[in-house]
Amino acid sequence: MKAVVIDGLGRLSVRDVPEPAWPAGEPVIATRLAGICNTDLELAKGYMGFVGTPGHEFVGVVQSGPAHLVGRRVVGEINAACGRCETCRAGLGRHCPHRTVLGIAGRPGVFAERFSLPAENLLPVSEELSDEDAVFTEPLAAAMEILEQISVPRGQSALVLGDGKLGLLVAQVLALHGCHVCLRGHHERKLGLARKWGVTASCVAPGESAAAAPGQAGCHAAEKFPLVVEATGTPAGLRDALSSVQPRGTVVLKSTYAPSQLPTLDAAKVVVDEVTLVGSRCGRFAPALDLLAQRKVDVRCMIDHCLQWAQVEEAFRLAARRGVLKVLVRFDGAG
Amino acid sequence: MKAVVIDGLGRLSVRDVPEPAWPAGEPVIATRLAGICNTDLELAKGYMGFVGTPGHEFVGVVQSGPAHLVGRRVVGEINAACGRCETCRAGLGRHCPHRTVLGIAGRPGVFAERFSLPAENLLPVSEELSDEDAVFTEPLAAAMEILEQISVPRGQSALVLGDGKLGLLVAQVLALHGCHVCLRGHHERKLGLARKWGVTASCVAPGESAAAAPGQAGCHAAEKFPLVVEATGTPAGLRDALSSVQPRGTVVLKSTYAPSQLPTLDAAKVVVDEVTLVGSRCGRFAPALDLLAQRKVDVRCMIDHCLQWAQVEEAFRLAARRGVLKVLVRFDGAG
Repeated sequence: MKAVVIDGLGRLSVRDVPEPAWPAGEPVIATRLAGICNTDLELAKGYMGFVGTPGHEFVGVVQSGPAHLVGRRVVGEINAACGRCETCRAGLGRHCPHRTVLGIAGRPGVFAERFSLPAENLLPVSEELSDEDAVFTEPLAAAMEILEQISVPRGQSALVLGDGKLGLLVAQVLALHGCHVCLRGHHERKLGLARKWGVTASCVAPGESAAAAPGQAGCHAAEKFPLVVEATGTPAGLRDALSSVQPRGTVVLKSTYAPSQLPTLDAAKVVVDEVTLVGSRCGRFAPALDLLAQRKVDVRCMIDHCLQWAQVEEAFRLAARRGVLKVLVRFDGAG
Repeated sequence: MKAVVIDGLGRLSVRDVPEPAWPAGEPVIATRLAGICNTDLELAKGYMGFVGTPGHEFVGVVQSGPAHLVGRRVVGEINAACGRCETCRAGLGRHCPHRTVLGIAGRPGVFAERFSLPAENLLPVSEELSDEDAVFTEPLAAAMEILEQISVPRGQSALVLGDGKLGLLVAQVLALHGCHVCLRGHHERKLGLARKWGVTASCVAPGESAAAAPGQAGCHAAEKFPLVVEATGTPAGLRDALSSVQPRGTVVLKSTYAPSQLPTLDAAKVVVDEVTLVGSRCGRFAPALDLLAQRKVDVRCMIDHCLQWAQVEEAFRLAARRGVLKVLVRFDGAG
């Protein structure tokens, strides 16, 4: 079958690969629509020494597996846990030390005609929900994870740093939750999307500290927030987040970086102001799928390009361009 | 009056200083017993550009002020808040942006014949509690602050990194709370104290990672903990703490460092494992004083030296020696 392959040397190409020996009893899914995530771009550049087929944002159709799933349109949780260890028994399967992660660790991803995932990871998508909405389940779940990890009172102010795909979703989720959200980023076009959701968005010049955004009604540069979400994807984001958080406030960290880019931590600031830093990664799919089905979040506006499978290499090039939001790849008729 | 003075050039001496203009209505306290904290040693080396009289761990006698306090033996909260700002109104006086901090910021400290503190900061010490116990109220409150900030189930395992004064108090407080506590440090003598409190203590060679302590019953080097308290006072402590914490676990940060020593943060580890880092500083005095009065914590064993006021410079030299625990200075008859 055809699959995108990253070779570990910073190259990405489409190749004919042998059909994998699918794990016994594990459903095989034909990809219908896949989204390119920043993690995919990092993997293509060599992050984690990745070699293989990337991709973890998908809508697909189950080709083989349990009868109740075959033929169903599905999305799927990307962490495949062992289900037996202490971590799994504690309900933390997404942190199972033996887990594989779709298109990231130990499990080929969705930029291929077919891939497999355990049946318990799959969630059927209702008919009224389009592929273009449902493909956002994974990143939306990651944004919603924040509200599962910390208690955020409705009406609280929150600052989101970074107007990329994840920053926009986080801003939208927090606004929907009832927060007064300020978003700081570098791109007027993206910030304009956030303003439609009632978010106060301010633009800072690239290189300028996101913490020093020009004052604007409801989002003053000197304002300190009880909650700051760092989604810039750059090591400087941590420093900006710490300079914008109130004493006893919380900074949620969403960005990961290559080991060569580790930020320094102003430990004295964290200790003296008793700041809490919360690392946040993947979230539960069911609540995200519900929110999409209820049309409570606007994800379509974040789709910048949707290319056919034959143009997947071009899709990765487009996704890597500065300022580009979501790029999707459609597999209709490819399989 | 006589006072210890730090000159901002790394020198500490006893001098005759003019009696300060005591703030109107603020009680003046004669120092009876004072403890030397690592922060005092850092201030003497130039931390925060400190110039003036250090000291914030004390038992004293109120010389002037409200009638109900005059003549009473007291300890006192070291943060003097404005009481009027938004932070104070939210009950977070210890984080008041206008606060002064006894012997640390904007307020002369207790290594002097007399000093002042607001009446609301003072807590009378009951007769049955000795000066030598009561002088530990401030560091014990700092150790107990952890349990005010995070929910720690009884029976949970906890790892404390660092066998200094604060690490020992934290280990003792967590053991008293019902945790299974492992303590890692460099000094067999100090670790021996902790074992008396039911703590599993293991020694690592200086320079060796505290996370890689040799395996020992109940405290294996490879064990991951849901709670890790970093109290090493060194930048390497953060890395060791992160390598010992479970996914979704909590690392409490107690160490502050000079800006030149900022540790790097393995942000990917924090995000992927969804670790929570909690900065922790001062705590409430009343519960700490209660615990001391109930004789539930053993602090006397941590007193290595108790010198007279005439030998205060020697006391600071002793306190700076590697491996030395608490050094106290007695002011009886000095005032």
